[in-house]
Amino acid sequence: MGEAPQGLTHFLGLGDLAEATWHALLADAERLAGPAGREPLLRGRRFGSVFFNPSLRTRTAFEVAALDLGAHAVNLQVGGGLWSLEFRDGGVMDGEHAEHVKEGFGVLSRLLDALGVRCFAGLKSLEEDAAEPVLSAIARAASVPVLNLESAMDHPHQGLADALTLRRRLGRERAKVVLTWAPHVKPLPLAVPHAAVLAFAREGHQVVVARPEGFDLHPGVLATAQRLARAAGGVVEVTADRRAAFAGARVVYAKSWGPTGYYGDPAGGRAALGRHREWMVDAAAMAWTDRAWFMHCLPVRRNLVVADAVLDGPASIVFDQAQARLEVQKATLCHVLGVPVPEEGP
Amino acid sequence: MGEAPQGLTHFLGLGDLAEATWHALLADAERLAGPAGREPLLRGRRFGSVFFNPSLRTRTAFEVAALDLGAHAVNLQVGGGLWSLEFRDGGVMDGEHAEHVKEGFGVLSRLLDALGVRCFAGLKSLEEDAAEPVLSAIARAASVPVLNLESAMDHPHQGLADALTLRRRLGRERAKVVLTWAPHVKPLPLAVPHAAVLAFAREGHQVVVARPEGFDLHPGVLATAQRLARAAGGVVEVTADRRAAFAGARVVYAKSWGPTGYYGDPAGGRAALGRHREWMVDAAAMAWTDRAWFMHCLPVRRNLVVADAVLDGPASIVFDQAQARLEVQKATLCHVLGVPVPEEGP
Amino acid sequence: MGEAPQGLTHFLGLGDLAEATWHALLADAERLAGPAGREPLLRGRRFGSVFFNPSLRTRTAFEVAALDLGAHAVNLQVGGGLWSLEFRDGGVMDGEHAEHVKEGFGVLSRLLDALGVRCFAGLKSLEEDAAEPVLSAIARAASVPVLNLESAMDHPHQGLADALTLRRRLGRERAKVVLTWAPHVKPLPLAVPHAAVLAFAREGHQVVVARPEGFDLHPGVLATAQRLARAAGGVVEVTADRRAAFAGARVVYAKSWGPTGYYGDPAGGRAALGRHREWMVDAAAMAWTDRAWFMHCLPVRRNLVVADAVLDGPASIVFDQAQARLEVQKATLCHVLGVPVPEEGP
Repeated sequence: MGEAPQGLTHFLGLGDLAEATWHALLADAERLAGPAGREPLLRGRRFGSVFFNPSLRTRTAFEVAALDLGAHAVNLQVGGGLWSLEFRDGGVMDGEHAEHVKEGFGVLSRLLDALGVRCFAGLKSLEEDAAEPVLSAIARAASVPVLNLESAMDHPHQGLADALTLRRRLGRERAKVVLTWAPHVKPLPLAVPHAAVLAFAREGHQVVVARPEGFDLHPGVLATAQRLARAAGGVVEVTADRRAAFAGARVVYAKSWGPTGYYGDPAGGRAALGRHREWMVDAAAMAWTDRAWFMHCLPVRRNLVVADAVLDGPASIVFDQAQARLEVQKATLCHVLGVPVPEEGP
Repeated sequence: MGEAPQGLTHFLGLGDLAEATWHALLADAERLAGPAGREPLLRGRRFGSVFFNPSLRTRTAFEVAALDLGAHAVNLQVGGGLWSLEFRDGGVMDGEHAEHVKEGFGVLSRLLDALGVRCFAGLKSLEEDAAEPVLSAIARAASVPVLNLESAMDHPHQGLADALTLRRRLGRERAKVVLTWAPHVKPLPLAVPHAAVLAFAREGHQVVVARPEGFDLHPGVLATAQRLARAAGGVVEVTADRRAAFAGARVVYAKSWGPTGYYGDPAGGRAALGRHREWMVDAAAMAWTDRAWFMHCLPVRRNLVVADAVLDGPASIVFDQAQARLEVQKATLCHVLGVPVPEEGP
Repeated sequence: MGEAPQGLTHFLGLGDLAEATWHALLADAERLAGPAGREPLLRGRRFGSVFFNPSLRTRTAFEVAALDLGAHAVNLQVGGGLWSLEFRDGGVMDGEHAEHVKEGFGVLSRLLDALGVRCFAGLKSLEEDAAEPVLSAIARAASVPVLNLESAMDHPHQGLADALTLRRRLGRERAKVVLTWAPHVKPLPLAVPHAAVLAFAREGHQVVVARPEGFDLHPGVLATAQRLARAAGGVVEVTADRRAAFAGARVVYAKSWGPTGYYGDPAGGRAALGRHREWMVDAAAMAWTDRAWFMHCLPVRRNLVVADAVLDGPASIVFDQAQARLEVQKATLCHVLGVPVPEEGP
């Protein structure tokens, strides 16, 4: 899915991104955190975002990223004044959908220079979500670059932002990083944990995925992360032993996700979720670590995913993660539009 | 309705537009398709769009048109964070509407320099829709220019864009152009077919409206189109013989609309629609023509209005129509704001 | 609530605003009504608005204010593609809210330079609304300036705009100004009448609040208004004698609000409202005055709050109030961002 037709540069996922591109984007993001990030590098370009799902950080950070760089930003919310969109091929469109993504994104490609898309997992079929049907259909339909603002199985800007945030804390030191499953009221998609494990694997960290039995990530993504980790001199391990995972960790990255065994069964998924409330990240769990930083992509449910004391404490770097979103998104915008980011001046 | 109070230049419909204005707008749109369309001709002007109904193309194209020309663009969605609006005069407002268009658009006229309005047909009374009650009330309430972004009975920017698209294919050659009714799941308004027939009549084409019995356009609009056609050396005919209509056609413009005899009766309208599924435009029907271009305003329901093979084939120019929207909308913005469009340089 | 942490300049309410700030803002607004209001005083600054409730004037006027001054404007609608937000502290977030304002506004503070917030009264508990729980939580969570775009108990930009509008009619003359309660279909919040009485008290007018028994303003706000009035050489009185209130008035400011005795009881509130339909402002009532100007914040329900003849008549200055919103909002943006407004040139 990473290859765009007709020489286009899409930015769709972390799994098949070239290693050089990964490092270039992080370096560009760091440059764009300085004065270069307020230069009109993208003057007159038009960036549009299409949201099939809610957003606060992503929407705001992309709009600000575009405006800071002199581009125009257009926001479109499916279902909020936008036609409902079909993405399947070949059918008779006599149902609820008034427009096909082929037309919707074909048209937007004539009006805009790059397109962001948020399309969460359907959570009905793991196999279908793993094929990224909506994002793939859009990437084929668009004739301008498409950026993934969180799809069924990946959230690549979050992964980039998390890697950048850790580089700022650890430099290029490799560290033990725990991605810990956390409780929730409903099964959530796998996109963020996937992006986190792929990002930290690319950085060569010792990544430990701590989760209760039955809460595995997608096996294909896990295999990709392990391959990327090996190439970067790191490792990705999976355990149900939360305490062992936290021991010696320098980073605790909390996130809830649904049990893949109950995919398409929300009631069963909720019941499975409810059996592990003790996985909330609290001060006691953080005390097992080596004074770890606490990370979360946000939004986060307080005192369910993480205790107030941890989220409000000095180890929490969640706002730094959010700020890094702005900087990496400036980098991916320049990347897909083919605009070089200037080196910092003397 | 075309005359605005106080010397204002509204752009409300194609029926009573001066012939010179029609041609000037198309010429300006062609100029604005070039570098002039990225010049700050409208620097600092504020264009606001108020949508009572969904939009993708119109919203995006107007926002980009304004931004490309240096203007500000403000989007407002009624029902999406906006107060519900009354348009009838003299009543006691003790119902659902919190604000009257007199105040809403009076206020917006103090804050913005031009206003776009989308207000679809109510589809309850043909007579009421034909009077354009919402658009007319807004045009009276506003003290800045108002542009029609699709009203009950007209979609003038679509008509302009369609005419521009055909000029780019045919030059000023007059051709047989079929506006063909197409099936749908529900009765749709008459605005787009009205705009198409008015636009092609103004261009002097041999316009054939092909529709099943019971699916007539509004008789007043048809009479206007026929008058405009005669003045331009063309003709507007109506037939239920689809095959004869397509024979020799250079252009097939597909669009569904509801049966006026079932206006206000959606169930009856749907039943009437369902009796003509064979009117879908497919490759067999296109083979009757003289290698016609296929046009549609979008959004379109695939394999109900038009077959995939036609829409995805080389005769389809639907994306060119959408792109022309951007260019004609730049022209109408300059027109209503009284800003001349520069001639192309040497 | 007026004091922001960490040296921030919030703009949250009229009650505890320094007198010098009040007058400086009105003077700046007058300057910004001229060419200075189109200068890029805020170039590159990013202003974001978060709306928990509908808006037309406020949203448009803030967006235009920011754009006119060279700033970026980002609009966010809670519930319209934005996560639902919790504002209470310490709870387990296992209900409907996906995000806490601590995170939501903490993140927005990393992406934007100032934040506007609209959060209407909950109308369940007067005591709770009087504590401004949402606005206060946001003001604590934000690390950039917060502006109140109408909260539970205040609408300070409306008050500023109304004061500016009257200065333009009366100069600094002190006049009899009646804030008259008006009928409605449902109990409305107290924010606008509070802002009006605080604003007119600050201006030293003879303010008369005319309302039926049972429709008192919040006693704390009334006491603050009376204190401010004394300091400015004016007075704030309350009466149920509508005719006596209107007698000799130079200004009639109409607004409906709910009966505080039925707070949390919408049915009882509606019944109480229905007993005073004769309080509608009509030509007969206006004839009791000294050729008073008619003011209303809008939106207004015609022939329920005010008769068509008054609202459409020459004494109505409601559009001037709306236009003044733009000018005072430019002033508060410059104020909270610490940007001086230049004196007018020679």
